[in-house]
Amino acid sequence: MKGSEGLLATAAAAGVDICFANPGTTEIPLVEAFDQESGVRAVLGLSEGVVTGAADGYGRMTGRPALTLLHLGPGFANGIANLHNARRARTPIINLIGEHASWHQSADAPLNSDIESLARPVSGWVGRTTSASTAASEFAAAYLAALRDRLPATLIAAADHMWGQGSMPVEVPAAPDRPQVDEQRVAEIAKVLSSGRRPVLLLGGQALENPEAIRTAVRIAAKAGGEVLAERGSARVERAPGIPPVRMLPYFPEAMSATFEGFSDLILVGARTPVSFFGYKGQPSHPLPDGVKVHELADADADALHALAALAEATDSAAEKLPKAKRPEVTAPTGALDADAIAAAIVLTQPENAIIVNEGVSSSAAYPAIADAAPAHCELSQTGGAIGMGMPVATGAAIACPDRAVINLQADGSAAYTVQALWTQAREKLDVTTVICSNSRYRILDEELRRAGIDDPGAAAASMTSLADPALDWLQLARGFGVDATRATTGEELRTALSRAVTESGPHLIEAVL
Amino acid sequence: MKGSEGLLATAAAAGVDICFANPGTTEIPLVEAFDQESGVRAVLGLSEGVVTGAADGYGRMTGRPALTLLHLGPGFANGIANLHNARRARTPIINLIGEHASWHQSADAPLNSDIESLARPVSGWVGRTTSASTAASEFAAAYLAALRDRLPATLIAAADHMWGQGSMPVEVPAAPDRPQVDEQRVAEIAKVLSSGRRPVLLLGGQALENPEAIRTAVRIAAKAGGEVLAERGSARVERAPGIPPVRMLPYFPEAMSATFEGFSDLILVGARTPVSFFGYKGQPSHPLPDGVKVHELADADADALHALAALAEATDSAAEKLPKAKRPEVTAPTGALDADAIAAAIVLTQPENAIIVNEGVSSSAAYPAIADAAPAHCELSQTGGAIGMGMPVATGAAIACPDRAVINLQADGSAAYTVQALWTQAREKLDVTTVICSNSRYRILDEELRRAGIDDPGAAAASMTSLADPALDWLQLARGFGVDATRATTGEELRTALSRAVTESGPHLIEAVL
Repeated sequence: MKGSEGLLATAAAAGVDICFANPGTTEIPLVEAFDQESGVRAVLGLSEGVVTGAADGYGRMTGRPALTLLHLGPGFANGIANLHNARRARTPIINLIGEHASWHQSADAPLNSDIESLARPVSGWVGRTTSASTAASEFAAAYLAALRDRLPATLIAAADHMWGQGSMPVEVPAAPDRPQVDEQRVAEIAKVLSSGRRPVLLLGGQALENPEAIRTAVRIAAKAGGEVLAERGSARVERAPGIPPVRMLPYFPEAMSATFEGFSDLILVGARTPVSFFGYKGQPSHPLPDGVKVHELADADADALHALAALAEATDSAAEKLPKAKRPEVTAPTGALDADAIAAAIVLTQPENAIIVNEGVSSSAAYPAIADAAPAHCELSQTGGAIGMGMPVATGAAIACPDRAVINLQADGSAAYTVQALWTQAREKLDVTTVICSNSRYRILDEELRRAGIDDPGAAAASMTSLADPALDWLQLARGFGVDATRATTGEELRTALSRAVTESGPHLIEAVL
Repeated sequence: MKGSEGLLATAAAAGVDICFANPGTTEIPLVEAFDQESGVRAVLGLSEGVVTGAADGYGRMTGRPALTLLHLGPGFANGIANLHNARRARTPIINLIGEHASWHQSADAPLNSDIESLARPVSGWVGRTTSASTAASEFAAAYLAALRDRLPATLIAAADHMWGQGSMPVEVPAAPDRPQVDEQRVAEIAKVLSSGRRPVLLLGGQALENPEAIRTAVRIAAKAGGEVLAERGSARVERAPGIPPVRMLPYFPEAMSATFEGFSDLILVGARTPVSFFGYKGQPSHPLPDGVKVHELADADADALHALAALAEATDSAAEKLPKAKRPEVTAPTGALDADAIAAAIVLTQPENAIIVNEGVSSSAAYPAIADAAPAHCELSQTGGAIGMGMPVATGAAIACPDRAVINLQADGSAAYTVQALWTQAREKLDVTTVICSNSRYRILDEELRRAGIDDPGAAAASMTSLADPALDWLQLARGFGVDATRATTGEELRTALSRAVTESGPHLIEAVL
């Protein structure tokens, strides 16, 4: 069989079932192979930021890598920003980049460029096919790397290797389990916890995706007289009435540091030492009060579930009763909309098992603050700060979980980066409801100007934060891409629109005017 | 003054007057500095592909670098594809990438990434600021590199260096002139031309942007009994009734090779040895018939004008009468639209001195085939194959030349990459008319499937070339971004719509339904 067919058959046999694609001429042999290999379904995106962001959303929900199919260096480059987010989310993805035929590369044809240099900053693994007959095993290496590293892996596939005959599918080796934290480390942390001081466990990554991990952490903290916090910008956080609420770290460094006041020891469980999103004059990179000692139980790669279970045993917390959780009370929003009203409307209308994709930017914090009042759901956040992830990640999450409702809480400025994702939502008839927080501003930049002491920016600076002239008409944009759309200016209207959107099948967009 | 102010004052003094921008928090000091330095105007784009493509269009029309202002690695990455095109177009651009404060970089905050690795493939020069007081001279180095190399130059500006005091504007040294071709080379080529065989001059780059260079080349060829051809995918081609028509090389390698049949010697004047856009089985990378000898008069960096003048003198062609040019006859299109009809409608309605931005892809060749019948104009083409350049380049060209009409002949699939450019056209009230060639397909991929022998692709492959389900509603998309829009299904309707669009001020979009 052809190299492209051996590669796709290898992918299908390994359980890869989706390829988010924006192909060009060099990818024609792979495009054709989708008709030979029914195990992998191709989903078209109008631009590569949609493709890679969708693969991120898919991978966050399934833990399995989706393929992306991209067109040489420039096509890949368009997808880098959302791969940056995927790298921060630790999402396995396998990028297939079509490349000129091997014998044509030295001619430096117009689309030729240094693909490796572009790929390395967002890939845990970068490789090239070397022939048709080895393409399947080269794919297997990329697959293994993506799962082992939980990062995007990038395979550059030359067109002649994909057209060439002599390929055979290969069996993909099993990915290694996450490394387990050693007993010594667990014993050390147990000692810290039993020292009678006031510890805080900071959960990240795997620990926030697993209800039992969260319960175990809360038991450990309760026994030690401490608390549990959640890292900001997590790939996926699970919440449900049966899961203890965990407070999320705030955005700005002063507030982050204040959150840790009064604690003696910070125990990292799949989380990093807290880092300020940006460097602000007079604020440290790692905003922690003096005297807080940092201990790492499990890094982002380690088996945090096992580490927590071992720590619970070592601290005799396993049988600890879960403290009575105080859940937020949410009242139905009325009148003019603000970020709190939008969050409340979502919490009150989201169905059981919804997936919330939160790229609210300046409107993002309101939702997690009250989300413990909502039915069981998970929230996918902005992990890497590369804006334009919301709509694509929502698209990929909906492909991954066709029986769950997806609600995308979406800032308007960020939405404008990858609004093309709406077309894939329409084409695939996905149950995604996009709520545009429409303030016609880059409001986060207004806040940053104020933080820098510029309360009254001049005309030039002010114009750089305004999206008002002309205002984006989100209803026309959505309909232009084939998505049903409506506008809400009050809490009542927003709840009505949300109720309808999550009930009807197919994608909807609601412009929530702030 | 602050680093950002010294930098912008240096830019303004050097004649840089435009900054295409999509800033974030790390760029706040530069955003604020636009109010201190009125010499540089900031133009906002909704995404970075718009920003870099606009800088390409601006640089192609003025020969001067525009600034781009981009947000760390991911923001820059979104602009790489159009910088790839700018690199192929040899457009000077200065990218300013805001970066974390120098003391914050090692903390690996979420937006941290290897910016140099991303920047090198599309930049002739990459550097970093090292302090507030040196930022202006570091900018001067980037400026000089952009003009000297005629390539994007990328300066990574740390936020603390931009906020810091102690900066002073510096004077920017003059860029060196293009190197002149030596007499020996000219004499060798003159000897080839006088050998009585049948030469062809292939013009590229600078030689196609200068009417006198085209005339000189045609005189030289006439005297030698040869012909003149134009490289495909040129940054800018000038056409006017007083400029001899020059045929453009075709796209596919068989046709390219056939064009050179019967010629003995190929003389490159600012052009490269012809290269096939993609590598096709059985076709060479450089499609030339056996026996055609290639000679380089001037490479893309050399002073092609001087080289042609010297060659004209050496061959005694300077006084040669220009051969009577046969200009195409164009009849007004009627009835259903195809690529030829769209091209004809544009040729018949474009006003004097229009700028035609051609990203027609599968509809692109029809326009240059008849463009010598049009009033004086220039055409900006797809140089690097990274699609999504048309709307941004048109935007930048209109900013560069506010008194000229810009007509963007635009494929629908490519338009969907950077459709956000329409918003900047509306905001800046630019006289851009976008003609969408709306066939609801990636038609070039249909052609490539057929070339690969796949006349009847399966359902999966066929779905990868179709944009029909749902069809993009270009009128709603344009209006959503604030641009007036209309639809044309016949030649008559298209001519009416074009006449109105080029007469009225401000941007217009016409969906030409194929």
